[in-house]
Amino acid sequence: MPRYALKIEYDGAPFSGWQRQADRPSVQAVLEAALRRLDSGASDVAAAGRTDAGVHARGQVAHVDMVRDWAPYRLAEAANHHLRPAPVAIVAVARVADDWHARFGASGRRYRYRIVSRRAVPVLDADRVWTLRPALDVAAMQAGAARLLGHHDFTTFRSADCQARSPMKTLDRLDVVARPYPQGTEVRFEVAARSFLHNQVRSLVGSLVRVGTGSWAPDDIARALAARDRAACGPVAPAHGLTLMAATYPDDPFESGPVETSPPDSA
Amino acid sequence: MPRYALKIEYDGAPFSGWQRQADRPSVQAVLEAALRRLDSGASDVAAAGRTDAGVHARGQVAHVDMVRDWAPYRLAEAANHHLRPAPVAIVAVARVADDWHARFGASGRRYRYRIVSRRAVPVLDADRVWTLRPALDVAAMQAGAARLLGHHDFTTFRSADCQARSPMKTLDRLDVVARPYPQGTEVRFEVAARSFLHNQVRSLVGSLVRVGTGSWAPDDIARALAARDRAACGPVAPAHGLTLMAATYPDDPFESGPVETSPPDSA
Repeated sequence: MPRYALKIEYDGAPFSGWQRQADRPSVQAVLEAALRRLDSGASDVAAAGRTDAGVHARGQVAHVDMVRDWAPYRLAEAANHHLRPAPVAIVAVARVADDWHARFGASGRRYRYRIVSRRAVPVLDADRVWTLRPALDVAAMQAGAARLLGHHDFTTFRSADCQARSPMKTLDRLDVVARPYPQGTEVRFEVAARSFLHNQVRSLVGSLVRVGTGSWAPDDIARALAARDRAACGPVAPAHGLTLMAATYPDDPFESGPVETSPPDSA
Repeated sequence: MPRYALKIEYDGAPFSGWQRQADRPSVQAVLEAALRRLDSGASDVAAAGRTDAGVHARGQVAHVDMVRDWAPYRLAEAANHHLRPAPVAIVAVARVADDWHARFGASGRRYRYRIVSRRAVPVLDADRVWTLRPALDVAAMQAGAARLLGHHDFTTFRSADCQARSPMKTLDRLDVVARPYPQGTEVRFEVAARSFLHNQVRSLVGSLVRVGTGSWAPDDIARALAARDRAACGPVAPAHGLTLMAATYPDDPFESGPVETSPPDSA
């Protein structure tokens, strides 16, 4: 059966998360149902990031085996037709080797967490950002973030439900960037690693917000990390501010760009 | 009664438009109800832009007369409390002269219209952009837009329902800007004038899209304008891609910035 890599966007709000669950809507189930409308023998779908309830994606990557051979752009078009009106869209498709794996083959994941700090609710972005009233000290959060880069035991910053065998992870990037937002400030966290523990990004963001509001000093982040104790973590930031931006691979199957979802003659 | 200028954001989706209507939800009615929870003698509210059903605002400006004297930031806080959960927020308040008028005193209005052109629906932005599948020729649309700048009879580009006495308007700005969007392109129209006819921005955008897809030449825009005939207009672009960005005044009542919505001691 030919295997296809799928690049997927979704609004996490109506879903209990990526992963299929009995009796609760999931991105995986919606996607598998759409693919099986095309090909009743389509396989289950495996994804690079098993996002939690409410977390969005602009660059989730998954793979599926289809019984029939599909031109990649036709597979995207046909599956998107059946995905409507769910807020899930396949934005690129590539034919990959039979042993290519979206989850086990990924060399990195990148997440963005957005906060808007101002007094009035940012009603046009409320479903995509965590709204906080206090102004945040971005320089202090940057100093705290620097303590987290590199290879560490992240036990403090993982959920009690985390099923990873080891709490050791390497954090490659944790940029804290302030941008203007009308009558306030938007703060973006750009976070990248080979892989993450369960709730790791939201735990890191929630703890850094403690630094941003002044209740923690930047060094308290280092102390929390060194404690290797979930109880030392700040509050976990809410899911709706988080977006999976990209999964990366040693050889990007989508590297030829938007062509995959267009007819060959329009390339 | 003291008069206050209000800067307002809203998501237009659930409303039949700015203007109060019997039996249909409007931004004006929601806002007036919230203000009257604070002060039963609060006046009706007048706005710079009477946006249509589905049109959003990031910088609507209105004014209201209250019976009591309010510290501006307290008025914003208290009204926002009563606005919840409606997607309407007062982002700034300023005390203004008793004859200051949000509609008649405005010296300009600025709108943004967003299009995403790509094959897959941009699910995370679907409520804020017009999705079009064909790639658009931005240079051709820019050439067409240039024909519309200045003082003209815009009869072609106004709704049959338009109640303005004259179809003469001066278009100060109509920039067409392409930006990267994942697997596609975002095209933004930045449009400014002292005032607009009913449906003028959406009529201009819909006609320019005809140029962008190649069905019209840029000169066809000039011909449509010269026809002074509603039948010469292209299709009217849908409301949900349009946002009122700002209303401007000879003296900006909000010019001291975000301070108005914060306690004085936090300035």
